This record gives sequence, C-alpha cells and structure tokens, in this order.
Amino acid sequence: MASSGKLWGGRFVGAVDPIMEKFNASIAYDQHLWEVDVQGSKAYSRGLEKAGLLTKAEMDQILHGLDKVAEEWAQGTFKLNCNDEDIHTANERRLKELIGETAGKLHTGRSRNDQVVTDLRLWLRQTCSTLSGLLWELIRTMVDRAEAERDVLFPGYTHLQRAQPIRWSHWILSHAVALTRDSERLLEVRKRINVLPLGSGAIAGNPLGVDRELLRAELNFGAITLNSMDATSERDFVAEFLFWASLCMTHLSRMAEDLILYCTKEFSFVQLSDAYSTGSSLMPQKKNPDSLELIRSKAGRVFGRCAGLLMTLKGLPSTYNKDLQEDKEAVFEVSDTMSAVLQVATGVISTLQIHQENMGQALSPDMLATDLAYYLVRKGMPFRQAHEASGKAVFMAETKGVALNQLSLQELQTISPLFSGDVSCVWDYGHSVEQYGALGGTARSSVDWQIRQVRALLQAQQA
Amino acid sequence: MASSGKLWGGRFVGAVDPIMEKFNASIAYDQHLWEVDVQGSKAYSRGLEKAGLLTKAEMDQILHGLDKVAEEWAQGTFKLNCNDEDIHTANERRLKELIGETAGKLHTGRSRNDQVVTDLRLWLRQTCSTLSGLLWELIRTMVDRAEAERDVLFPGYTHLQRAQPIRWSHWILSHAVALTRDSERLLEVRKRINVLPLGSGAIAGNPLGVDRELLRAELNFGAITLNSMDATSERDFVAEFLFWASLCMTHLSRMAEDLILYCTKEFSFVQLSDAYSTGSSLMPQKKNPDSLELIRSKAGRVFGRCAGLLMTLKGLPSTYNKDLQEDKEAVFEVSDTMSAVLQVATGVISTLQIHQENMGQALSPDMLATDLAYYLVRKGMPFRQAHEASGKAVFMAETKGVALNQLSLQELQTISPLFSGDVSCVWDYGHSVEQYGALGGTARSSVDWQIRQVRALLQAQQA
Amino acid sequence: MASSGKLWGGRFVGAVDPIMEKFNASIAYDQHLWEVDVQGSKAYSRGLEKAGLLTKAEMDQILHGLDKVAEEWAQGTFKLNCNDEDIHTANERRLKELIGETAGKLHTGRSRNDQVVTDLRLWLRQTCSTLSGLLWELIRTMVDRAEAERDVLFPGYTHLQRAQPIRWSHWILSHAVALTRDSERLLEVRKRINVLPLGSGAIAGNPLGVDRELLRAELNFGAITLNSMDATSERDFVAEFLFWASLCMTHLSRMAEDLILYCTKEFSFVQLSDAYSTGSSLMPQKKNPDSLELIRSKAGRVFGRCAGLLMTLKGLPSTYNKDLQEDKEAVFEVSDTMSAVLQVATGVISTLQIHQENMGQALSPDMLATDLAYYLVRKGMPFRQAHEASGKAVFMAETKGVALNQLSLQELQTISPLFSGDVSCVWDYGHSVEQYGALGGTARSSVDWQIRQVRALLQAQQA
Amino acid sequence: MASSGKLWGGRFVGAVDPIMEKFNASIAYDQHLWEVDVQGSKAYSRGLEKAGLLTKAEMDQILHGLDKVAEEWAQGTFKLNCNDEDIHTANERRLKELIGETAGKLHTGRSRNDQVVTDLRLWLRQTCSTLSGLLWELIRTMVDRAEAERDVLFPGYTHLQRAQPIRWSHWILSHAVALTRDSERLLEVRKRINVLPLGSGAIAGNPLGVDRELLRAELNFGAITLNSMDATSERDFVAEFLFWASLCMTHLSRMAEDLILYCTKEFSFVQLSDAYSTGSSLMPQKKNPDSLELIRSKAGRVFGRCAGLLMTLKGLPSTYNKDLQEDKEAVFEVSDTMSAVLQVATGVISTLQIHQENMGQALSPDMLATDLAYYLVRKGMPFRQAHEASGKAVFMAETKGVALNQLSLQELQTISPLFSGDVSCVWDYGHSVEQYGALGGTARSSVDWQIRQVRALLQAQQA
Repeated sequence: MASSGKLWGGRFVGAVDPIMEKFNASIAYDQHLWEVDVQGSKAYSRGLEKAGLLTKAEMDQILHGLDKVAEEWAQGTFKLNCNDEDIHTANERRLKELIGETAGKLHTGRSRNDQVVTDLRLWLRQTCSTLSGLLWELIRTMVDRAEAERDVLFPGYTHLQRAQPIRWSHWILSHAVALTRDSERLLEVRKRINVLPLGSGAIAGNPLGVDRELLRAELNFGAITLNSMDATSERDFVAEFLFWASLCMTHLSRMAEDLILYCTKEFSFVQLSDAYSTGSSLMPQKKNPDSLELIRSKAGRVFGRCAGLLMTLKGLPSTYNKDLQEDKEAVFEVSDTMSAVLQVATGVISTLQIHQENMGQALSPDMLATDLAYYLVRKGMPFRQAHEASGKAVFMAETKGVALNQLSLQELQTISPLFSGDVSCVWDYGHSVEQYGALGGTARSSVDWQIRQVRALLQAQQA
Repeated sequence: MASSGKLWGGRFVGAVDPIMEKFNASIAYDQHLWEVDVQGSKAYSRGLEKAGLLTKAEMDQILHGLDKVAEEWAQGTFKLNCNDEDIHTANERRLKELIGETAGKLHTGRSRNDQVVTDLRLWLRQTCSTLSGLLWELIRTMVDRAEAERDVLFPGYTHLQRAQPIRWSHWILSHAVALTRDSERLLEVRKRINVLPLGSGAIAGNPLGVDRELLRAELNFGAITLNSMDATSERDFVAEFLFWASLCMTHLSRMAEDLILYCTKEFSFVQLSDAYSTGSSLMPQKKNPDSLELIRSKAGRVFGRCAGLLMTLKGLPSTYNKDLQEDKEAVFEVSDTMSAVLQVATGVISTLQIHQENMGQALSPDMLATDLAYYLVRKGMPFRQAHEASGKAVFMAETKGVALNQLSLQELQTISPLFSGDVSCVWDYGHSVEQYGALGGTARSSVDWQIRQVRALLQAQQA
Repeated sequence: MASSGKLWGGRFVGAVDPIMEKFNASIAYDQHLWEVDVQGSKAYSRGLEKAGLLTKAEMDQILHGLDKVAEEWAQGTFKLNCNDEDIHTANERRLKELIGETAGKLHTGRSRNDQVVTDLRLWLRQTCSTLSGLLWELIRTMVDRAEAERDVLFPGYTHLQRAQPIRWSHWILSHAVALTRDSERLLEVRKRINVLPLGSGAIAGNPLGVDRELLRAELNFGAITLNSMDATSERDFVAEFLFWASLCMTHLSRMAEDLILYCTKEFSFVQLSDAYSTGSSLMPQKKNPDSLELIRSKAGRVFGRCAGLLMTLKGLPSTYNKDLQEDKEAVFEVSDTMSAVLQVATGVISTLQIHQENMGQALSPDMLATDLAYYLVRKGMPFRQAHEASGKAVFMAETKGVALNQLSLQELQTISPLFSGDVSCVWDYGHSVEQYGALGGTARSSVDWQIRQVRALLQAQQA
Repeated sequence: MASSGKLWGGRFVGAVDPIMEKFNASIAYDQHLWEVDVQGSKAYSRGLEKAGLLTKAEMDQILHGLDKVAEEWAQGTFKLNCNDEDIHTANERRLKELIGETAGKLHTGRSRNDQVVTDLRLWLRQTCSTLSGLLWELIRTMVDRAEAERDVLFPGYTHLQRAQPIRWSHWILSHAVALTRDSERLLEVRKRINVLPLGSGAIAGNPLGVDRELLRAELNFGAITLNSMDATSERDFVAEFLFWASLCMTHLSRMAEDLILYCTKEFSFVQLSDAYSTGSSLMPQKKNPDSLELIRSKAGRVFGRCAGLLMTLKGLPSTYNKDLQEDKEAVFEVSDTMSAVLQVATGVISTLQIHQENMGQALSPDMLATDLAYYLVRKGMPFRQAHEASGKAVFMAETKGVALNQLSLQELQTISPLFSGDVSCVWDYGHSVEQYGALGGTARSSVDWQIRQVRALLQAQQA
C-alpha cells in the first residue's frame, strides 16, 4: 500500500486530506434522497427474503428498522456522523445502530452503483409528476384566460415590427401550445426514468437469484433495465430531464421577453401585479418586472446544468466512474428552479392586467396591407401582383402623409382598376381577424378550436 | 424612406452592402431543401385549387412547372441568380420563367415563415428515417457480434480498475442497449417533426379558406400545428433533433473511449481493421485509431450546435425573427455528421478483431474477491462481514505476495471458519460469470435474454 | 496485420471504406491553410539547412519549389489528388512532383503534429490582426457618431422601464466601451497565439539540432513553446479565440437587441438604412431589421463552437489525438462570422437615422423622480427619506392624474417643507443630465471625457 | 396600481406571493459578500464626506456603525430579517438600527446597481489572488517533482499508442506548462476585475460630485469604469473568470485522464496515495482513483456555469436587468470548486508513487522506429525514404515475430545498405531521449531548461 505521506512540495497531507474528504463526500446534497433510499432498501430486503438470503424475521427486523430511520429523517432527528460520506452509508450505519448485525445483510448483492441510480430514478419520477402538475396548472390558467379575453385585439408582431391584427388570446395560446409539447415530452422522459436498475450490482449483475421483477413491482417501476453495465452508468434519464427543462425554459424565456416588452411604457399593453414587480433602491418611480426577468434568466442556468452534465459524460469510459456523482446537484437545482419558475409564471399570468384600450390603439391601417392584397386576390389578381399593388398603396400613403385607409378610391384605382367601393370593408380590424379561419388562425372559431384542442390534450395527458 | 448613404465614419456603403447581402442570404445552404420545397409547393397549389384560388388548369400548369424545376435541380442544371436569396425565392423565380404570371398565384396566403418550416420538417423527417436505418444497422451488427462471441470472457472495469469477470458480449450489449434508447427517442422526435405548419401564413393564419387537413394528407404529415404564431416560430423539433444527436454521440464517445483503451498496447484486447486506422507521418511503427478518436470528438461538435441553437432561441420575442435562420446549417451539419459516424461505427464494429487470449490472461483472481465474499454469504455470513473477510484475504495475499487463489484453506480459515474445501470452485472465471443469472447480468442465459430483448425492440421500432 | 474484411453483419467494407476516408480527411477545409503551410515549410527548410540536414542547393530547390506550389494555389491551378488527405500531404506531394526526391527531406524531424499547429497559429495570428482592424473601425464609427450627436437626449432604461434621461451618445458609448474590452482581449489572445510550436516533432521534440530560435525569427513569432508534448496538443489559443468571439458577440447581441427595440413602431427612436433591412414576402408594409437579428443570433452559433471545442478537449489523453482535428472548422467558421458581423455592425451604425423628436417626446417628468429626491438631499434630507418623499410625490401625481412636474409647490410642501420655488429647476431634462458630471456619467463633460478615453485606448492598442 | 388579486385560474396569490419572494431574494447566497459590502460602503461614505454630503461626524458615525455590522457578521451574530432581500438591504437595515437616521444618508447617489457590482469585483479580486496562490503551489509541486525524477524514462503516447520514449519529467512538465498559461490568464482577468464601477448610480452616473478617483484609491482599484451604463450591467469580468476556470479545468481533466490510465492495472505506472483513493462497497479488492475522476468531472460543471451565464447575457437589453442576478451563484460555486480541485490536485501529485520499473519495462524497441529512420537520415537518406525503410524493418520484425532490435545487421542491410554496425546505438532508450535536445524536447538539458523557464515565469507572475 502506498504511504500517504507527502513526497514532494505541496501542502501537507497525512493519511487523510480533509479537503479530499469533503470533495469526495456527497452527503451534503444527496440527503435529499433519504426517503427514496429507504424505500429502495425496503424493496430490496423483500427481494432478499424471497431469494432466501434473509429469513422472514430478519426481513421484518430490517423493514422495521428502516421505518425508524425514515421517521428520524422526517422528524429532523437523524444525526449525521462525520463518516457518513453519502446517504446510503448514513442510512445503513444508522440501521445497524438500531437493529444490529442483521443490518449487514441488507447490502447483499447490491452495490452503491445500482443503489444510487435506483434512488435517483425514484426521486426524479416523483419530481416529474410534481412538475407535470405545475405545468398543467400554468397551461390551464393560460387557456382559461385565453377563453375569457377572446375578443381583445392587438397587434401581432414579426421581427418586432407590427405585422397583422390578432386576438390577444391567440398570443396566449401560442405560448400555451408550446408548453403542451413540454408536457408531452415530460411524460416521455418520465417513462424512461421509470425503469428499475436495482439488481445490477456493481457491474456484472446480481449473483444471488434476486427476482428483479419482484423489485420492479415493489417499487412500481414500468420496466427493468436490460444490461447491468449500462444500468449502473448511463445517465440518459438525467440528461433528458435537464434538456427537457432547458427547452421548457426557452419557451418561458420567450414568453417573458414578450411580456417585458408589453410592460414597457412604450407598449403599455399589460401591467404586472405588484406581487410580481419590485421597486428601485434609487429611482422612486420605477416598477420593474423582476419576476419575468428572473424567468428569462433561468433559461441560462438550467441549460448550463445540461451542458455541464453532457460534457462530464463525454468520452467517459463505460460503467461507473465517480464522475457520475455530478448528476445529483444538477437534478436538484434544476428541479427547484423549474418548480419556482412554473409557479411564478402561473402567478404572473393569473394576475396580469391588460390595457385593452392601448392594445386597440396600437392597431394601425398599415397592418392591413396584406388584407388589401388579399382583397385584390379575391378579385382575381395573382398574389405577387396584389402584393406589389398593396406595396404601392403603402408607399403612396406614406408619401402623402396619410394613413393607408385614408387613400381615396380614386387614388387606389390609379394603382389597380380592381379596387371598388367594397374596399372599405378591409379597414375593419374585427373583420380582418375573422378572415383567418383556417385551423390554427386567429379567427374566433379557430381560437375556440385551439382552446378545445389544448384542453383535450391536457385531459389526455392526465389520464 | 431612409437614405442608405453613410452618415458617419465606417466603411462605404451605398444602397446595397454586398457583405450584408451575403450575410442575409441563405441560398448557399438552404438549396439542400430544393426537393422538399417543390414538394411543399405542389401540395399547396392543390390546396389553392380546392379553395377556388386556382383553376384546375392553373394548378396543372403550376404542378407541371414545379416538376420541371425539380428536374433541373436533380440534373444539376438549375442556375441560381444573384437575386435568389433563398431556395423559396429561387424556385418561384424559376417557376415564373417557366410558366409565366400564373406562378405569382402560388404564394397566395402563404408566407416564407410557414413555407420554410414546412420544408425543414419534410427534410428532417426523411433524415430521421435514414438515420434510424443506420442506427438499426449498427445495433444489429453489435447484437450479431454479441451473439457470436458470447463465450469470450474478459475483465469488467469500474473506475477503470479491474472489477469482475464479464462476457465480452455483455460489454457489447451495454453499448447496444444504450443505442436502443437513442433509437426510441429518434422515433419520438420524428413524431413531433411530423406535424404540418403550412397554412399558418406569416403570423395570423390563412385567410383564404385553405384546407389544412388536405395539405396534411397531401404531404403525409401525422397532424397539423395548433397555433399559427407558434407554428412559424417554434424550433422545438430542431432543438430536439440536435439534442437527440448529442446524447447519441455521448454514447458513441463512451464506446469509442473504451475501444481506444482496448486498442492500446497495454490492454491489447482488440485490433482495429486497417480500414479504420491510420499511420504516422513521423513514426513508422504507429497505427492509430483515428476512426474512434473522430467519433469521440464529434460529440463536442454536435453538442456545440445544440448549445448554439438554444442560445439563439433564448429570450427571442415570439413569432418569426430572422434569428431562426440559424436552424438550418445546424441541422445539415449534424445530419451529415451522424450519418458518417453511424456508418463508420458500424464498419469499426464489424471488422474489429479481438484478442481472446489477451482478454483471458487479463483476468486475475483478485477480481473474484466479491465472489469470495458471496461464498461466505451463501454460508450464512452477513454480507458486510463477508466483504470484510474477503478484504482481509486480499490483504493477506498481497502481504504474502501471492495471488488470491493461492491462499491455502488453512490461511483462509484463519479469517473465517466458514471456509471449506468447496472454496476452490470460486476460482473459476466461467463459474463466476454464470452466477450472474438475474436478468441483466452477465450469465449466458441473461446475455441471451438481452439479445432477444434488443432484437424484439428493433423489430417493434421498425414496424 | 488485421484483415479489413467484414466479420459480422454491417455494411460491406473492403480494405478501404470510402466513408471513413472522407470522415478522416481534412483537405476539404484545411486547404484554407495553403499559404501558411508553405510559409512554415520555407522556414523549416532554412532550419534544416542551418542544421546541416540540407545543403544550400537543396534548400534553394525546396524554397523555389514551395514558391511554385504557392503560386499554383494563388492562381487557382493547384490540383488536388484523391490521396491528398490534408493540406500538408497535398503540398508535399506537389513539391515532390515539382522538384523530385529532395522534397522528401523537408519533413525531416518534423511531424504533422507540430506542422499543423504552426500553420493554424500563423493563420489565426493574421486573422486576429484583420479582426482587430474591423473592430477598431466599428468602435471609431461609434465614437465619431457619439461625438456628433452629443446633444441628443432620450430615455435611459433599466429593466426596460424608463429610468433617467441620458444622452444618446452615452448609450452609444456604453456599447463602444464594451467593445474596447474585446479589443484589449483580442490583443492578449494574439499574444498567446504568437508562440512557435515548430520543432516539437510528434511528441518528444526535435532530435536533429534544429535551431528553434531561428525558426521563430523566420516566422516572426514572439516566443517558442516550452514543452513538445504540450505544444503539439494544446489548443488553448483556439479555445481562447472562440471565447473571445463569444463574449464579443454577446456585446453585439445586446446592442442589436437595443436597436431592434428602438426600431419598433412603439419606440421609433431610430430607423435602419434600407441596406440593412428587408421586406416581407407576404406583408407589403413590413421593413424588418434583419441585419440586427442576424447579429443577435450569431452569438449562439459562435458560442456553440466554443462549447463544442471545450467538450472535445475535456478528458482527452495528453499529446496529439485525432480529436484535435475539430479545431479548424470551428476557427474558420467563427472567423468568417466575426468578419461579417463586425462589418455589418459598422454599416448599420454608420447609416442609422435617429428620430430626435421622438426621443425627446419619450422623456417624461416621472423620470426625474430621482432628481427630485436629490433636490431634497441637497437641502439636507437623508437620501432614504428623500427617496420616500419623492415616491410620495409620484404617488400623489398618479392619484391626481397629473404629471409629476404639475404638482403645485403647495402640494409638494405637504410632503416636505424643504420644497421651495427652486424646485422648478428639477423639471429641465438638459439640467438633469448635466448633474451627472462624475466621471463615467451622462453630463456633457463626462461624455467628452469618455470619447477622449476611448480614442486614446484605440491609439494605444494600434501602436 | 394593479390589484394583486387573482384574475383567472391559477393558484391563489395575495398582495405577496411567498414563492416569488424567495425566487426574487438573493440573500441566501449573496451574504458571502458581507465583508466587501461593508468595505465598499465605508469607502463610499468617505466619498460622500469629501463631496460635502456627510459631515465628518456623520461619516465617523457611519464608519463606526459599519465596523459593528462587520463585527456581527464575523462573529456569526448578525441576524437576518425576513425583509432582508439582499446583503445590501440587510447591512443598511442593520446600520440604521445601530446608528439611526444618519444611516439613510449612506445610499445617497448610489444604487444597488453600482453597489452590487463593486462588491462582486472586490470579492472576486480577492478570490483570484487566492486561486493564483493555489495554482502556483500546484505548479511548484509539479516542477519540484519533475526536477527530482528527471532520470525516469517511460513511453510517450500519441493517440494512446506508444510513440517514443520520453522522460517522466517531460510528461509532468507538459501539464505544468499548460497551467502556467492559466496562471498568466488569471492575472489578466484579475486586471479587468480590478476596475471600480462605484459612482455609476443606477444608469446615468453620480450627480453629487462624488470623486470616483478617491473611491478608487480607497478601495485600491487599478482604474475606474468609463461609462455608467456599461459599468452597471456588463459582466465580462464574470464571464472571463468562468471561462478561465473552464479552460484550467480542461487542462486538469486531461492530466487526470492520463493519471487514471497510468493507475490501471494494465499500465501500472503510478499508484495514488490512499488519501486520494476510495474503496468499493461491493468489491473488496478495489481501490479507485476517485480524486482524479472528480477532478475530471468538474470540468463539466464549471463549463456549465460559463455556458449558463453567457446564455443569460445573450440578447439582454443594455443596462441593469434582474437577469444579472444569476452571476453570483455561478461565481461562488466555481470559486469553491477551483479551490478544492487545485488543492486536491496538489495533494495527488505530491503523494503519488511511481513504479519506475514498470515504466521501464513498457519501453519497447518498436518505439525507436523513428530513431531508426533518423539513423538513416544522418547517413544522408531523405527522410521520406528513411521513414519507409524503417517501416519495412518494423514489418520485417513483425513478420519474423521478433523485436525490432533483434533484426540482424544483414537483415537490415536488405532494406538499406546504409545500415552498419553503429546501428546498435539506436537501441538504447537513454541515448534516444538525449537526441531530443532542441528546446522543448525531452533531452535532459531541455528538461532542465523547461524547469528553469517555468520557475522564472512563476517568479515573474508573483512579482
């Protein structure tokens, strides 16, 4: 064995380097897993009993002891030792204190390699359910709001330039629809989380005839892992979860960006509730959309965790390496962030006030230039020519310094003889949006269809 | 209108800045989309005809013209103009040259915003099918090999330290099983790619009664998008595809890392075919595993594209912004990379030679220390004590300078009276692996089960 | 030697796999290096001559031959062979065709490992100089503009909420100052690029007495690398360059974001030149700030390349591995992108028109609430109380539905008796900005100081 | 003012949403800044006194109060209120409790925007100094070791294939030299951290004549920021620090990878001290290099934070936005990680044992094939032919199943008549390495030169 003494230079180290001990230990954060660790051990002791490695009495003793361990955690009375490097060691150490040597039978045929990944899957499975619930609540809030405010019109923008009149509900639904994809993906991720690795040992599998199907049923997993080497060292389910969160945050960052703009003095379409705004330590008149800015910013943090994990995984030799210990802090931080973000977003949306009058005033006749082109199309002009004719009208109005709808019929007719008296219908915003009746458009019927579709999706996902 | 003259400093610019034109144009790469662009336009002209915006004759004229456009691309005779900023403009320009003014009716109610994303989905749908096929071939090759070499044993490593004897096939399958998850995920991504956005216009939808269900059926999409604003500006399907590739590459980078190690002189477990190795310009004796190193390295490149796209999407105002133009080069590059990587990996695996003798010689009795502990467990000793007893045996052997299996029965009995003559069975590697018979383990029966499972998965996915 | 035949499954491969050949070859992109490759070889042949490994005549023959190779590249007449896997092989092959066997002496003691990294450093050194020049031109344009429009006031925003009146030039300079840090960093990166690795061989160094100091002087490097293993395999200079570009793009993305907002109808502070805008294929009235959106989006692409390279480098065994081949495409793409972005940004800034009247109208009395607090501070009130008092005034004005400056003196005095007639001076925006005279503030004197500082920096950097 | 009541759906929120409050608050982590916050406030109160905004007596009262605040933090007696959302608010609140209304004068002309970034710069400046010290200690340890073990030879690898014999010290120095670049970069980053933003207010600057030069001198900064908008919202110094750490970790991950390989049974070149290894919960014989695996893995975590911050910054409107609050946790986590990693790496290197005999036995004659080619070069053969001739010798030896140095002179002469009796000198490993005498090579003189160079660099950096 190598002596631990220092050979050259460097800071002093004896047999033990306290910085290394802290560097190596995961107990500071993996104690989050106490409950699932106990749960996994209970199932495993049932497996051992069935395999004849524990008597019924030993199993009962272990089950009872584990319940006491869990009780101590739940009540905050569990005391960590300085040698408890991780939650698995801590729980088994405590079990031994409580029930004696029988505790030493619990780890038979099990390795921390299959134990920790079972714990993490149990934990994350529960988290996914919680986050799904929060996501559904956000979507539902948005859909309810979309339904209630269906008749509010305001400008739709592309490239942040005013484009066409749309329903405010159409904007809400554009973000809600994006979130339904996150919801669908989360269910898929959960499906792949919900696979049992226990019974894989350290690398080669379990040699003692443990019935993995029994373990699966005990822990209510959907399937068992196929290969013990892969099972103990793959972290796809973590990477998928982190990416799921990253993409969901991208959506929320875009919604936040829109709302931050709509909150500006210049747009003044919406007003954040005071509960989601903060003031300035210097400027007395300020009311800042901090909640939305934080939502937007968290997209970076969450993606950073995803990037970090993938880099850690890149080129790693197969099977378990200590590098994999990086998975847990990422998962815990991202879960907490998502939970807060989804709830704050729900609060923001449900308390937001809209300034319907400002929205209406922001509509301008030039936003109907496309409709003017469609007018000509309906009269038989090929679209390319109609687009050009409408462009000429826009230019004529700009040159004359009038609004597009203030061009006289004669003026329009200099551009195309197809213009006639009925062109006046074009200048009605309500009429404009109603044209967009194809599925997915901004007509009332289509917005209603969208609401029904999203509600049906939610219902199906919750089933 | 703003004058384009230069106001202050800076390089000269007139009405047109050639650097800006090049910066803005996408034709250099989006010409990859020529075929799907024609395909989408053909379907759209059918939609226009049904909506009464084209006569049957006009439609036929357009369809015919589009076929000619496609023919020119296929034959390499399509000539780009300097004004063709993107594939959509180029194809429509050429159509007009071929069929005249009727061409101007094609874009009626359509925007490049819904057109480009339809094209990209069509293209990526096809690519996913191709990549699925290549992935299946790789997995199949691995499974075939695993089946053929089922009886080869070699050391399993954790933390790159020799851990337990395993079957070589168990190692192959550990990577094949990881790839089956990639295959499953790719089908899920494809499902979300396979949704039709056409008929969403620029932002508000389609106002001319185009039947999106007809378009869907024409282009064989699985569903239609729900909201026109979301449809034209979400790139989830691109992000998902890039992440799919990133995670798949992470798997392949780990397999490559293992094989690079196994190719070293020190391990000497495998030998790469010359077709996948290269020599040195300086050192005559070298044979380098370049193919594997390239596979490992591409994990970085592919993930970089994923990271880049997500950063581009972060905080983007909703609906179409030109920022989204970044999607295509990422998709094209990653598709090409995945195609090459999967084929090279298949070539590597199918031509790799293994050095079975070296593999066998690398097994050492200390790798059976766990089995020695299990021996005691089977005699009734709690695992924790058995683990400690086995550890003592390891230490005793080290101290005496002998192999673990060379300790005499008497010596072992000083550690525990439970040792008896049958301990000699422990020292058989073939016997060792056969213990790991729980599902997912390295026993022959379990390896066979894995092979059946993976084959069944492949069959189900291809259905 | 391993046979190359296929053993199991998979696609057919013979002795050569064309997909592997293409996967392995770098000639498609590293031909960018033709000029520096010739340059490096010329210097190396001088080193060989001094070391006695080439006669003067042989050296002259090689130098002459290399000049002809360069000439062929320059004139576009260089013909690639199908065996030219990289630029080094291609150039040496051609040299041999031109001058015969003597060409075989050029690579003496050299490896592609030290050759390629020498080439890349030479190329990147030149690129840094070019990009520095483009960056300086952009900064100069901004400073010139800042000087010319010093008297234009408009709202300063924090959290996108109107905060305090500032000079338009102060905004321009806020971005110019950020870019001066990029400029400073680029010089530092260049310093670390400018170090000669040639003479490191493949790994162990050069055994033939080549004078690396002579090579350094020939190629005008600032220093030589210290360790041959590090020299051939470190890509810090690439990573630093990619990160430099990423951070610079972050700055430009923020400037672009501001300008995109200022271009909206709602803000209407600026108008992009037509040369940097584009229209819509659907909406005739649209004029979109595509140039700015593209600049914003490229931040993602560039950072993606940085992320990709770092992931590739992570955990790589030391010395040369083929993984390092990933460096070049990243460098070429990012260099091209930066060159275009910097020029387009210069064009945008130099042709932008400002709407001074709109800017002025966007100033509102509530933006002077901080100044109102300072008024009280100057009368002796502690700032915390003054901030509160000003906040009360803001609330009073809101409640009464008047602007903050329309509160009467009596009304203000109900809040604090310190208010007197001179409070009217607070309501002057020109007076407001002039208060901010501390260095770095928005007063004219400070803006002038900033302009002088930035100009002095530029001058110092160009020295 | 907007009511905070809930309008639609969603969870209940009143005037205050506790989840939002926690989401918004930074006190949980920014209390790390307590000391620098006090330091900054003390300097600022001196600035206010000089500007006539505080009397000497008021300033003394504030300074005294701030000292008491600091004392409470240092002694762990500072009590946080539930309203203390950040460290700035907490400290000022406590100051007021201690000294009364005068405390309200401290924030005059200051904003949290310039305060927080001043604090963070002060904190990070100190951290950089600490990390520099740890990095120097690591490099020094490596250089000391390199000097002591200069005469140990072992195989140098490229592509993980045995390449050429090198000195073990040459390997150590290859990593030490990489770290000297990190050290140089850290000093450059520190230089840009060491710039004072205080006196920038919220956005427009300081209107009360505060002398920023005095503040700079008080806080010992190297310069002052140039523009108040930039000063309060740029986080280049954070991004640079995070990238510095990422690149440094990349180096350490590569060193860790090498050592993990050298620790394998197959290589057996080195043995980790027990203090830096851990055992297995399952396999009694295992000793795992956890310290090295953790170092390797942290490269991902650290880079993830860098990626996260850059994504957060991308496209952010200029000036302060709450998004910037993401900077601090990244900085704190990365600083802690770097501190631990550098110390553990120093411990690992200083206690590592090498197996010199194994190293020697791993050298094999085929690694001298390049030297065999050089032998012919020295006899006048062009290198390309010599490389080919040596390759033939390698093939001949392989075919005959003998080592390269066991080919007889006659056999060699069938390949080239230039071979003669002195070829035997080639087969001496010690002789081989001594050839590589060009600067940077593996000859003893060059290794000594490297040691001197690195020591000189360290000395210069510490000056």
